[in-house]
Amino acid sequence: MRYGIIGTGAIGGYYGGRLAESGHEVHFLLHSDYEYVMDHGLQVDSCNGSFHLDHPFIYNNTGDMPQCDVVLVGLKTLNNHLLATLLPPLLHSGTVVVLIQNGIGVEADVQTLFPDVQLVAGLAFICSAKTSPGRIDHQCYGQINFGNYSCHDGHLFGQLLADFNGAGVTAHEVEYDEARWKKAVWNMPFNGMTVALHAQTDELLRNASTRRLIRELMMEVIGAAQHLGVKNIDERFADQMITMTDAMTPYSPSMRLDYDFHRPMEIDYLYSRPLQMARQAGYVMPRLEMLEAELRFLEAGYC
Amino acid sequence: MRYGIIGTGAIGGYYGGRLAESGHEVHFLLHSDYEYVMDHGLQVDSCNGSFHLDHPFIYNNTGDMPQCDVVLVGLKTLNNHLLATLLPPLLHSGTVVVLIQNGIGVEADVQTLFPDVQLVAGLAFICSAKTSPGRIDHQCYGQINFGNYSCHDGHLFGQLLADFNGAGVTAHEVEYDEARWKKAVWNMPFNGMTVALHAQTDELLRNASTRRLIRELMMEVIGAAQHLGVKNIDERFADQMITMTDAMTPYSPSMRLDYDFHRPMEIDYLYSRPLQMARQAGYVMPRLEMLEAELRFLEAGYC
Repeated sequence: MRYGIIGTGAIGGYYGGRLAESGHEVHFLLHSDYEYVMDHGLQVDSCNGSFHLDHPFIYNNTGDMPQCDVVLVGLKTLNNHLLATLLPPLLHSGTVVVLIQNGIGVEADVQTLFPDVQLVAGLAFICSAKTSPGRIDHQCYGQINFGNYSCHDGHLFGQLLADFNGAGVTAHEVEYDEARWKKAVWNMPFNGMTVALHAQTDELLRNASTRRLIRELMMEVIGAAQHLGVKNIDERFADQMITMTDAMTPYSPSMRLDYDFHRPMEIDYLYSRPLQMARQAGYVMPRLEMLEAELRFLEAGYC
Repeated sequence: MRYGIIGTGAIGGYYGGRLAESGHEVHFLLHSDYEYVMDHGLQVDSCNGSFHLDHPFIYNNTGDMPQCDVVLVGLKTLNNHLLATLLPPLLHSGTVVVLIQNGIGVEADVQTLFPDVQLVAGLAFICSAKTSPGRIDHQCYGQINFGNYSCHDGHLFGQLLADFNGAGVTAHEVEYDEARWKKAVWNMPFNGMTVALHAQTDELLRNASTRRLIRELMMEVIGAAQHLGVKNIDERFADQMITMTDAMTPYSPSMRLDYDFHRPMEIDYLYSRPLQMARQAGYVMPRLEMLEAELRFLEAGYC
C-alpha cells in the first residue's frame, strides 16, 4: 500500500508520520516547510511516543508524486478548491481518498469534482498542532474513525484500518452519516461558541446559562440529524458529549485557533452546509443560524 | 404639581431639569453628586438649548423629601429593589409614579411592591449621559412617551403631558403594552448584539449576516408580542426600525455602555422577563434566549 499525504500539518503530518514510522511507503506534500524538512526531516512529538523521520519522501508539487493507493487529505476545507489540481497526479483507477476534515458536506463536494474516485471520511479525535516548521506536537487522544462514503474496494478499506492500527493509531469503521453528524454534535456548539464568547470549553460548561445553551445547540444538531434520517442518535448523545467535555482538559477547538490567529474559519462546512441541508429538508436550527451569523460578522472584522 | 426625581442621572437629570427650568417645583434625589450640586448647581448641556439650575431642591435621602404629585424614576432597573424604601416618603394618596426605565415587566413588579400606587411607563427616546458630577450631556432626540399602566387620575395624567410639552419636551400618550413591546423590538436585538459582538448599530446593519439576524431577532419580539395579544405590531414595524437605525448616528445602546464600563447589565428586564412571559404563554424566542445566555456569560466574566 502506497500512501500519499496532502497537507502535512497537525493531521496529515501526524497520521502520515505514524504510517511511515511503522514501515509504510508514505509520500508527503509540503508547502512552506519543504526546504526545512528536506534538511532536517520531520519531527513528531507525541504523548504516545515521539519519533523523527530522517528522510521522508517529500514533495512541493503533486505533479512529482507517484500514484498512491490511499491519499490522506489533511487540508483545511477552506483549501478544498485546490484539490481539483492537487489530486489528479496521485490517482490511479483504484485510489481511495480519505478526507480527514471537519464538517458536513465535504465528501459530497469532492465527489462532484471527482465522480469516480472512492471517498472515505476520516474523523480524527486528536489534539495536535504544527508548532514550527517540520514539527508536529501531538498532545493527546489520536483515535481516527473511518466512514465509508463511496469506497467499493472492501479489501483496501480493511487494509487501511489494519495499517493504522498496526501503526499504533486506534482506527475503527463507523457508519458515514452517523459519524459525521455525531461529530457535528460536538463541533457545531463548541467551535463557534468558543469563538463567539472568546472562551474555552470548560468556561462554557461552568456557567449555568451557557451550559444550558450548549445543550440546546447540541439538541438542534441531533434534531436535524434525526430529521435527515441519521440512525442511532438521540438526546442521550448530547449528555454523553457534555459529560465527556466536562472530563476533558480545557480546550480551544480548531476554529478558535483560526480566529485567534486571524485565519479564515471553516464556517462553510461546519455551519452553512449542515444548516442548509437541514433547512432544505424542512428543519430549522435557529440558534446555530444565529451562531453562524455571529461568526460571519467576527470573521469579516479581520479577513 | 410638585415633581420628585429619583435618580438624577442621564434621564432623571435631563427631564427633571427641563421641568425645573420651565418653572415647576422639582425635588431631586442625588447620591454621589449631592455635595457637588449643592455647591455648583446642575448643568444640562443640550442639543435643544443648554441651561443651568443654580439652586435646585436637592436631597441625599428621600426621608427629607416632600410628598410629590408625580415621581419620575430614572434609576437603572437593577436598583429597583431600592424603591421599597426610597419611594414611600414621596407618596401621598394620589401620587403618580412614572417609571422611565428599560424593559418589560418593570411596572408589574413595582405594582406588586406598591399595590395602590398609580403607575405610568415613561419611554424615553433620547441620547443622554451623565458625563461628570452635576453635568448632564443631552446629545440628541429627547421625546418621551407615556403609557398608562394603572393611573386612574386622568386629570393628573393630562397635566403631566402638558407640563412636559410646556417644558420643551415632546411627550405623547401611547398604549402601554404596545409601547413597551415596540420599544423591545429595537432594544432586545440591539442592546444585546452590540455587547455580544462588541459592535455599534451601524456595523451590525452593514454586515449582511448580522443585518439578517437583527431582523430575525426583531421578528421574534414581534411574534411574542402578537402572541401576547399586543395590538398594532407586525412585520412592517421591523422594517421601520431597521430603516430608522440605518439613518441614525452609529450608536452604543445603554447595555453596551454598561458592558464597556463593567457595570452590571439590565439583562433581567430587557431579556429574562419578556422571554419568560412569552415562554409561559407558549411562545419560544430561541435566538433571544441564546443572546440572553451569551450576555449572562459575558457579565459573569466581570461582575
